Amino acid sequence: MSQRIVIALGGNALGKNLPEQMSAVKHTAKAIAGLIAGGHQVAVVHGNGPQVGMIQNAFAAYHRQEPESDVMPLSVCVAMSQGYIGYDLQNALKEELLDRGLSTGVATVLTQVVVDEQDPAFRHPTKPIGPFLTREEAEALAREKGCQVAEDAGRGWRRVVASPQPLAVVELSTIRALMDAGLVAIACGGGGIPVAARERHHLKGAPAVIDKDLAAALLAEELDADLLIILTAVEKVAVHFGKPDQRWLDHLTPEEALRYAEEGQFAPGSMLPKVQAAARFAASRPSRQALITLLERAGDGIQGKTGTRISVSRT
Amino acid sequence: MSQRIVIALGGNALGKNLPEQMSAVKHTAKAIAGLIAGGHQVAVVHGNGPQVGMIQNAFAAYHRQEPESDVMPLSVCVAMSQGYIGYDLQNALKEELLDRGLSTGVATVLTQVVVDEQDPAFRHPTKPIGPFLTREEAEALAREKGCQVAEDAGRGWRRVVASPQPLAVVELSTIRALMDAGLVAIACGGGGIPVAARERHHLKGAPAVIDKDLAAALLAEELDADLLIILTAVEKVAVHFGKPDQRWLDHLTPEEALRYAEEGQFAPGSMLPKVQAAARFAASRPSRQALITLLERAGDGIQGKTGTRISVSRT
Repeated sequence: MSQRIVIALGGNALGKNLPEQMSAVKHTAKAIAGLIAGGHQVAVVHGNGPQVGMIQNAFAAYHRQEPESDVMPLSVCVAMSQGYIGYDLQNALKEELLDRGLSTGVATVLTQVVVDEQDPAFRHPTKPIGPFLTREEAEALAREKGCQVAEDAGRGWRRVVASPQPLAVVELSTIRALMDAGLVAIACGGGGIPVAARERHHLKGAPAVIDKDLAAALLAEELDADLLIILTAVEKVAVHFGKPDQRWLDHLTPEEALRYAEEGQFAPGSMLPKVQAAARFAASRPSRQALITLLERAGDGIQGKTGTRISVSRT
Repeated sequence: MSQRIVIALGGNALGKNLPEQMSAVKHTAKAIAGLIAGGHQVAVVHGNGPQVGMIQNAFAAYHRQEPESDVMPLSVCVAMSQGYIGYDLQNALKEELLDRGLSTGVATVLTQVVVDEQDPAFRHPTKPIGPFLTREEAEALAREKGCQVAEDAGRGWRRVVASPQPLAVVELSTIRALMDAGLVAIACGGGGIPVAARERHHLKGAPAVIDKDLAAALLAEELDADLLIILTAVEKVAVHFGKPDQRWLDHLTPEEALRYAEEGQFAPGSMLPKVQAAARFAASRPSRQALITLLERAGDGIQGKTGTRISVSRT
C-alpha cells in the first residue's frame, strides 16, 4: 500500500567533503529509490552539521582576508548548505531512479523553519557543527574565537550552536504541491533555515541549527505523513547501550520512548533527538508510525522485518 | 487577462553584500508583487555574477587556509548562490505579498541547466563574475591566479568565466508543478547550475556561469509563458547608444533585434544578451512577447506604456 513517508538522513552520513558526499549520496539514493519504486511518496530531510560548519569556516576565513566582506550569519550558511547538499543528493536520486526506468522528478526546496527567539536553547547551545576536533583544538577555538564547544557523543569535540524547537515549516505549501504532483521533495535541509517571526510578516534569520530529526517529525506531521523514517548508524534502538544488560528494541510506544529518554538511556545529540522526534510524530495521531533503523535496512524496516518501530499501537 | 510571465532580474541589481541585498530585494519585491496582484502567474530568474564570485573567493580563501578543504567547483558555488540569494528574495516577495493580503506561496527551486561540454564558450570565457576591479587588480589576478579577466561594459575590470548556451532546464517539472499550484517560483538562479549530460543519466557540473537572460528565455519557452520581462538599468533599448543619433526603441521584431545585434549596437555582457534572449523567446511562437525595461516600469510596460517590446507582430 502506498504510504506518504518522510525520511530523515544524517549530515554526518553525507561525508566531510565533496568527493565523500558524491559517494555517500549514491549509496543513500539506492535505498531511497527502493522506497519510491515501491510506490511510496517520499520527502527527504537531511542534516548539515559538518557542511554548515565548513561553510561558516570558509566565510570566516574570507572575512579575515577581506574585512569588507559579509560576516556570514549562520542562517545564510544553512541556506547555502541546502544548495551544497541538495545539488548532489537530488542528482544521485534522479540518476538512480532513471537507471530503474522511473522518471519521477526530484526537487530541492529552499526551506525555512520558524523558531521562537525566546526558546531557552538560545541560552544553552547544544548542536554540534563543523569538523570533529581534538580537545586541544576545541579549547583553542573557544579561547580564540569565543565559540562554545562540547564533547559530541564520544566521537570527539566540536563547536556547538543553539538548537531551538522547530515550530512551523514556512514552505509547507511548496512541499505539499510537489508531493501532490508526484515529485520527491528534498526539504528542510539541515533542519531548515531557522527564522523567527517578527512584526509585519517579517522572518528574521536566527543564529541556530535546528535538529533535522525534529524538523522531519514536524514536516511529517504537517504533511500528514503515514511514516517517519529516521536513519541512523545502528539497526535498532537499544536500552542499556554498551552495557552487559543491553537490549535491542523492536517496538516502543511514545510513552515508553519518552520514559527511557527521561531515564537517560539515549545519548544527547545522537539517539536522544531521534527517539524524541519519533515519539513526537507517533504520538500526534494513532495511525502514524515512526521507524528508526539503518539506511540499508529501511526497505526491510517498512515491512516490519527490522528496526525499532514507534507507534501508539503494537500491531 | 492573466498571463504566465518569466522575469529576469540582474545579479548586479541585488547588491554587493547582504545588507545591500536585503534592501535591493525589498525594492524588487514591490514591483514583482504588483504583477502577482494583477493576477499574473510569475516565475523569477535572477543573476548571480557578484554573488557567485564572492562565494568562490570565500572558498578559495578557506582552501588556502585549510588545504584539506574542498577546491569548490564553480557549479557548486552557483548552487550555493541560489540559496544565498533565493532566501532573501523569496522572503522579501512573500512579505510584500502578505502585506497586500495575498497568501500566494513563493518557492526557491534549486535548478540545473544543461549545457554542451563542446560549446565553444568553454574556450572563450566572457561572463564577468565577482567584484569590479581596477585594471591593476585585474592584471594581478590574471598573473597570480591564472584567471581570465576582461573589461566589463565600461564599468571596470572583472574575472570572466565560460558562459555556454542553456539547452534544457532539468527541474522543469518541478517549476511547472509549482506554477500550476498557484505558487511563485524563483528558479534558474544565476542562470542555473551548469551541468553536462554524461552516460547513464549522470549530470556533471560544468565550470561555467550561464547567462541568466538566456536561461530565462529558455525557461519561458519550456513553460510556454506568454511574456518574458528582462529587467535592466534603462527604460528602453537604444540604438546608437550614447551618440548624437541615439534612438530609443518602442518595438523590435526578432529579426530587427538580431540585425541590430549583428551591427554591434548592443554592449556584450550587458544589453546584447538581453536583446538576444528577448529575440529568441519572441521568435519561438508568434503569440510570445518579450519586454525589456526598468524594474520600476515593469507594470507600465505590461500595459504597453513603456519599455521596448520584442514580438513578431507590432500590434
